[in-house]
Amino acid sequence: MKFAIVFGGASYEHEISIVSAIALKKVIKSELCFIFLSPERDFYAIDIGNMKSNYFAKGDYKKSPKLELTRNGFVKKSFFGSSKIEFDTVINLCHGADGEDGKLASIFEFFGIDFIGPRIEASVMSFNKIYTKQLANMGGLKFLRYVAVNKKDRQKVLTENIVFPIIVKPSRLGSSIGVSVVKNKDELEYALDVAFEFDDDILIEPFIEDVREFNLAGCFAKDFIFSVIEEPQKNEFLDFDKKYKDFSRTETVFKADISEELQDKIKEEFKKIYNLGFAGSLIRCDFFVIGNEICINEINPIPGSMANYLFEDFNSVINDLAENLPKVKKIGVEYKYINEIASAKGKAN
Amino acid sequence: MKFAIVFGGASYEHEISIVSAIALKKVIKSELCFIFLSPERDFYAIDIGNMKSNYFAKGDYKKSPKLELTRNGFVKKSFFGSSKIEFDTVINLCHGADGEDGKLASIFEFFGIDFIGPRIEASVMSFNKIYTKQLANMGGLKFLRYVAVNKKDRQKVLTENIVFPIIVKPSRLGSSIGVSVVKNKDELEYALDVAFEFDDDILIEPFIEDVREFNLAGCFAKDFIFSVIEEPQKNEFLDFDKKYKDFSRTETVFKADISEELQDKIKEEFKKIYNLGFAGSLIRCDFFVIGNEICINEINPIPGSMANYLFEDFNSVINDLAENLPKVKKIGVEYKYINEIASAKGKAN
Repeated sequence: MKFAIVFGGASYEHEISIVSAIALKKVIKSELCFIFLSPERDFYAIDIGNMKSNYFAKGDYKKSPKLELTRNGFVKKSFFGSSKIEFDTVINLCHGADGEDGKLASIFEFFGIDFIGPRIEASVMSFNKIYTKQLANMGGLKFLRYVAVNKKDRQKVLTENIVFPIIVKPSRLGSSIGVSVVKNKDELEYALDVAFEFDDDILIEPFIEDVREFNLAGCFAKDFIFSVIEEPQKNEFLDFDKKYKDFSRTETVFKADISEELQDKIKEEFKKIYNLGFAGSLIRCDFFVIGNEICINEINPIPGSMANYLFEDFNSVINDLAENLPKVKKIGVEYKYINEIASAKGKAN
Repeated sequence: MKFAIVFGGASYEHEISIVSAIALKKVIKSELCFIFLSPERDFYAIDIGNMKSNYFAKGDYKKSPKLELTRNGFVKKSFFGSSKIEFDTVINLCHGADGEDGKLASIFEFFGIDFIGPRIEASVMSFNKIYTKQLANMGGLKFLRYVAVNKKDRQKVLTENIVFPIIVKPSRLGSSIGVSVVKNKDELEYALDVAFEFDDDILIEPFIEDVREFNLAGCFAKDFIFSVIEEPQKNEFLDFDKKYKDFSRTETVFKADISEELQDKIKEEFKKIYNLGFAGSLIRCDFFVIGNEICINEINPIPGSMANYLFEDFNSVINDLAENLPKVKKIGVEYKYINEIASAKGKAN
């Protein structure tokens, strides 16, 4: 199995995608090639020796060969002709917009490229946190109550009678970008400004201090494969700087110190969400445990460095998944209706 | 304003898209060009003189020049070089999969091509009828109660205590394909077979005889522009054959004979749905009126021949919409984090 890691993208998470790709370079034992999606949306074939963050920060990637997307896959063109980039399966590692909002899923499906990553529906439903709440509701999962606010209703929020603390999040961003914990009314206006800087839709949730959070990654390949369950150490909440460093993680973690029973319950909640369209992807779900209830907090359909550090044998997981990707139904077009109408009319028009 | 009509696609609605495009050829007064998406997912520039259904049914389209998608738009390549297809705005007229499921929206956004049609989120939320129910719920609209059934739970449905008549629909298809009205238990098994032939997810709703249905099309371009409200004549429900003929409609219709008050109420419901992400598209919504309640039945984000026949001055509507498409936020990448980390490390890696 040869993987092509597609990373970068026109998104606020462009840089962490680079860090994530560099981390996977060290982790994946299979043959690898790297395809960079620049902020200008050009694809480049990156030599593995150039997989260093400064190569991108300095703009040196522009010296790498540009690729074109065709129905045959990614193609390198030169004066002497064109050659296809050979690989079996893409790993979509573009965190945030482009990668997680459905654009790359659409492009890979359209151009017939096999890929690990969320499909279009799963992308849209997990990228927009308001839709994620609907999805959780459909799947019968518990979730924190929330209020969705559009930018045009910003003033209304300021006059509401709010019970603090709350957490304010842009609806369509990951990696904690634009997220604030708001402890009182004085801090609210600034938090709204920050969140609306990134998205016209935001979410407001109660902020629960000392809530226990558990992360579980997994995928379906013939059967469910689960990672260990981690209880992340946190200082209020992981902000972007901390999460950024998190994307380069490659060392394995220790299991959360919780009962087998609670572990099984968390896995059951994971399955409920995954079964709502996440086939083909390796996702990480973040759960809160509040009293006896397990609430889903977030779905990461392309977790940082594919949450490799949560798995005991990440290489076999990624290979199993690649061999069990969902099949796309082929739709035949027979021009049956046009022919019927044409023959009814007795002429060809 | 020069429009490029993109039609066809790898979908069960491929043929009606062709019929729809031919209808628009007669209706749109602006300069037009036609781009065909073949069932094999190649793009072709179709000469306006060849815009006849048989040209496609016979496969003659393969003689037309193939196009490549690039960041500069659609490009025609020949031995002598490449030339860009010149137009201002695409009209996405691919009904069904590819056009309405988010793939073309993704591709146009990715390649920076202006287009009339649903954006990615709006595509996904209207293409999957189960998600449409969630969207209606989010917007505070009324809708028919329903049960969603996955293929693996097919047997369970047969043992349920069902109140007939019901309507069985594949979750992700338009144009009434695979839809059956089921009057009793004996007909159920066949209806399930038909629906599951097209999708692994289906919807079952009560079938309400003699329900009044109203169709309203519209869009937002500085302000809302509405069509007349039509009460379609129907024989039980419009099946694919009847709807197919409907896609070639170009003659205008007469207003439904309902009070101004009810018309205004229907328009208010339309606005609620449209504001949940349909900016940039001209959609047709089908409503049921049951007692005093208006229920949303379906959202057609790319209605047949753009529902031109519902508008008194379709040409000005489509031009206004083209001039007021939603802007995509440009995301700048400054490599701030990578540079910070690199300088903290004191080396470039």
